Amino acid sequence: MSFYAASVQAFLPILGALSGILTKAEAHCKAKNIQPEVLLSARLYPDMLPFAKQIQLACDFSSKACARLTQSEVPSTPDTEKTFEELQQRLAKTIDYIKTFKPEQFEGGDTKEVTFPSGANQTTTLSGQQFLNRFAFPNFYFHAATAHGILRHNGVEIGKRDFLGIA
Amino acid sequence: MSFYAASVQAFLPILGALSGILTKAEAHCKAKNIQPEVLLSARLYPDMLPFAKQIQLACDFSSKACARLTQSEVPSTPDTEKTFEELQQRLAKTIDYIKTFKPEQFEGGDTKEVTFPSGANQTTTLSGQQFLNRFAFPNFYFHAATAHGILRHNGVEIGKRDFLGIA
Repeated sequence: MSFYAASVQAFLPILGALSGILTKAEAHCKAKNIQPEVLLSARLYPDMLPFAKQIQLACDFSSKACARLTQSEVPSTPDTEKTFEELQQRLAKTIDYIKTFKPEQFEGGDTKEVTFPSGANQTTTLSGQQFLNRFAFPNFYFHAATAHGILRHNGVEIGKRDFLGIA
Repeated sequence: MSFYAASVQAFLPILGALSGILTKAEAHCKAKNIQPEVLLSARLYPDMLPFAKQIQLACDFSSKACARLTQSEVPSTPDTEKTFEELQQRLAKTIDYIKTFKPEQFEGGDTKEVTFPSGANQTTTLSGQQFLNRFAFPNFYFHAATAHGILRHNGVEIGKRDFLGIA
């Protein structure tokens, strides 16, 4: 089986779905006369991260995972986005970046070791497959689903089908 | 690479993490004198599913995925759980069930077709890998992360490390 299909092709549909969700969130703001900053800074609890950061982190966990799994340079992107449009651009750039990878770059990547930061002054080493299972996917989907939950909690009319990218 | 490692070994850590989250949620209820039903029926929005159902669905999407990817009989489990203890048992049974699968049952499963219900009187057919990428993982992680988000929103002191199973 293809480790490219197991990673790149899992990330891309969700990143595309997040773009669709952003479009609906922005339309919701316009229709209800809500300042975009209200939704962009919304949180499920005071010590949780706001919506915009959830999107930025979904971008980071997917793009960095692809880099680490292919021993490529790990990209670093400043979190400067302050509008729906800028978050759309961040998602689009992430999708474009992930699409630059070729299946052959992932060959054998499931068993190659990946060493990644896992806290302050701490790194963890796992096989590529375990890195995907224990770190990259759980973090990626966590932030994507939390972004969705923040919007739902604030009354944006989306559902799980939007998260699945089939709405 | 191993399609067993890419599926079974992705589901199991999160199911284990959900068990740990349930333990903390139950302890929170005791410490704060909250009736367990309050958290078990909590939702992020009135037309979203409650916490208990999020756990049941995380169980279902993982166990049924393993069955479908191995052409095994798809299990059907009634959603009868009404307490933290019963949800713990549901998770434990799901973990035990998923652990019965052997790596060889997943060999070639990434390219074999899977036909699954995708709405009222509707089915979809995808390759095993696409089924995992487009349906099983997004649904599984969605419900697991939403369960986490409901508890966070209600003040249970957990964080992403609990979701990752490393708290």
